[in-house]
Amino acid sequence: MTLIVQKYGGTSVGSPERIKNVARRVAQWKARGHDLIVVVSAMAGETNRLIALAKELQSSPDPRELDVMVSTGEQVTIALLAMALMEQGVPARSYTGAQVKILTDSAHTKARILSIDEQHIRRDLAQGRVVVVAGFQGVDDGGNITTLGRGGSDTTGVALAAALKADECQIYTDVDGVYTADPRIVPDARRLKTVTFEEMLELASLGSKVLQIRSVEFAGKYRVRLRVLSSFEEEGEGTLITFEEDQNMEQPVISGIAANRDEAKITILGVPDRPGIAYQILGPIGDGNIDVDMIVQNVGHDGLTDFSFTVHRNDYKKALVILQPIREHIKARDIVSGDKIAKVSLVGVGMRSHAGIASTAFRALAEEGINIQMISTSEIKVSVVIDEKYTELAVRVLHKVFNLDQPA
Amino acid sequence: MTLIVQKYGGTSVGSPERIKNVARRVAQWKARGHDLIVVVSAMAGETNRLIALAKELQSSPDPRELDVMVSTGEQVTIALLAMALMEQGVPARSYTGAQVKILTDSAHTKARILSIDEQHIRRDLAQGRVVVVAGFQGVDDGGNITTLGRGGSDTTGVALAAALKADECQIYTDVDGVYTADPRIVPDARRLKTVTFEEMLELASLGSKVLQIRSVEFAGKYRVRLRVLSSFEEEGEGTLITFEEDQNMEQPVISGIAANRDEAKITILGVPDRPGIAYQILGPIGDGNIDVDMIVQNVGHDGLTDFSFTVHRNDYKKALVILQPIREHIKARDIVSGDKIAKVSLVGVGMRSHAGIASTAFRALAEEGINIQMISTSEIKVSVVIDEKYTELAVRVLHKVFNLDQPA
Repeated sequence: MTLIVQKYGGTSVGSPERIKNVARRVAQWKARGHDLIVVVSAMAGETNRLIALAKELQSSPDPRELDVMVSTGEQVTIALLAMALMEQGVPARSYTGAQVKILTDSAHTKARILSIDEQHIRRDLAQGRVVVVAGFQGVDDGGNITTLGRGGSDTTGVALAAALKADECQIYTDVDGVYTADPRIVPDARRLKTVTFEEMLELASLGSKVLQIRSVEFAGKYRVRLRVLSSFEEEGEGTLITFEEDQNMEQPVISGIAANRDEAKITILGVPDRPGIAYQILGPIGDGNIDVDMIVQNVGHDGLTDFSFTVHRNDYKKALVILQPIREHIKARDIVSGDKIAKVSLVGVGMRSHAGIASTAFRALAEEGINIQMISTSEIKVSVVIDEKYTELAVRVLHKVFNLDQPA
Repeated sequence: MTLIVQKYGGTSVGSPERIKNVARRVAQWKARGHDLIVVVSAMAGETNRLIALAKELQSSPDPRELDVMVSTGEQVTIALLAMALMEQGVPARSYTGAQVKILTDSAHTKARILSIDEQHIRRDLAQGRVVVVAGFQGVDDGGNITTLGRGGSDTTGVALAAALKADECQIYTDVDGVYTADPRIVPDARRLKTVTFEEMLELASLGSKVLQIRSVEFAGKYRVRLRVLSSFEEEGEGTLITFEEDQNMEQPVISGIAANRDEAKITILGVPDRPGIAYQILGPIGDGNIDVDMIVQNVGHDGLTDFSFTVHRNDYKKALVILQPIREHIKARDIVSGDKIAKVSLVGVGMRSHAGIASTAFRALAEEGINIQMISTSEIKVSVVIDEKYTELAVRVLHKVFNLDQPA
């Protein structure tokens, strides 16, 4: 007897028909003798509908009241799924976050989970029921309804798996796992059977929409066995996210290649090369609530250096406005910038023990005439910024040069 | 400083625009220095939408899960109204039934209120907030969400007024009070400034849709000052429902005339006139979950009598099916029945001390050639069953003969 936590997102429960499909899948797992906790999101579109309604009544909706309202989305889905399970002869009971109770802090619309009460869930599981839990929501110690922010249903699933020491947390989504590259760009991209948490964290931060980065962090912290599966395919093992590098398998050097077109680059030319200059530039950017991704500063000469960084394209114009007075103040020569860029990254824990990965990548790109504008590396990642128009070509070239189409 | 409970139904909060209107009205009352608790229903149509969705997933939806789902309707409205109040500068906070907490028994979809915790509400009122409470819902001692059944929002309002000893409970609806007759039938019908609880109970049981009968019973039991007002008119005092006959005013003999076309009549002819026969007939009807309204049995002769009663038209055919074997068993002669009937009733506490009301009514009907098929009386009511086609005529004739168009 194993305890499995399954999480189904908004698309997977987007219609009565799809909820029936989820119920059928849950019933199959149950029939195999597993205990099951099922976490669901609101039906696709519902959360946005509710937020739009709120904005009709308050220009900037009160966060406490917004949580009261938005949390009804999952509350409807849990009841519907419990009904669908009963209709298929499977005993089931639904729980809101408050009913569980999933205690959070009081940061409405972006609350963090503090603890989970196992009592009701354990009792229902012992009585043979499937327990259906509303994702994305909790309750603070004042009894106020809270939400965990967008994508929080993944976090609910992982947190429940951690609290109840589940054997596995399965995240059902509209893709059937994590791939060596986007299959729309690289037709022979392979699904990875396993990927490490560190790699998954890098992939998530690179814009891979498979899992919310916060739920991956949570799974890593509590060592939850996490698996990504397709909710639209009957069979398939998906991708298992492991928290240890598998010593017995030959570790592939590179696990995958990710591309991200959401960024813009900004370079300040002729910056005086003195201590504190990076803070003088990036401090005001952070104060403006703009997240900075890559930061590159090269060795200077003649007392001057060039300072580059990337921001989300949505923040690009705002960042330029903030920088203009700073440039004058620090007497930098000029600002050059552009948003027609892409960031292409190689990710793999195997890089740690393999030299020459970066140079292999740079040579492959050069042979295709792709100019590299910025480079940033970590222990398990090499990222380059290139002209946006070369995105697909770069991904395909790198996929090929590292033989990612071949099973590891 | 007085404490007012206001209740707004589904039509009054049926759109964002209408919710803003409710907020404006609440803000006006608040500006006059009153403390306010506002109870709201789900937006018109929402409860039916949710029930239809449930039925797509479970042929006979599980009552516990149905309550989890249906209760989201009010949960959305409380948040929207709280937001609308804040947008108008009025501090406000919303509460679900569980958050209040309104403790009920565990009879899902038709729960009864056991107790109300005043703590949160008192604290918010003391801090100058308007408290917005979800009608129609509560929570049982196992933490399960319950609903009070259709029209339960009126009951929530009255129960809160009773628990917090409010000075008045105002029920806002789409009519501006209780009338001496339906103004669509009698153009010169007058709005009553006051009506007694007993009269209101009779009127509610006669199908007047102004107030749910359960909330009236509740108000009578806890002596809550109850007022019916229009949510679509800015001014107006509506109708106050009093729990004592006003000794200082000249009590009108008749308060109002109600008509009900929802019933069907059934007569069993030639029933053996012996003890227990009424139970033999009505027992199986009750077992079939059919409510019986009027029951008439006249003095028998030759050991036989005729036994008549009325049921809701929806139950008419079912009742006839149940009765057929009973007729054979008790050897009654025949069953005659019809659903083209109307019940017209005079209601008034003044009847108690005035003789001749019934005969005046019967004469007025006879003069118009309206045949009376059944008669039933209580201390404050005279009801007659007539041919449905005479409904409007009968109401107008009775309204006139008792001078109800004249102020009392």
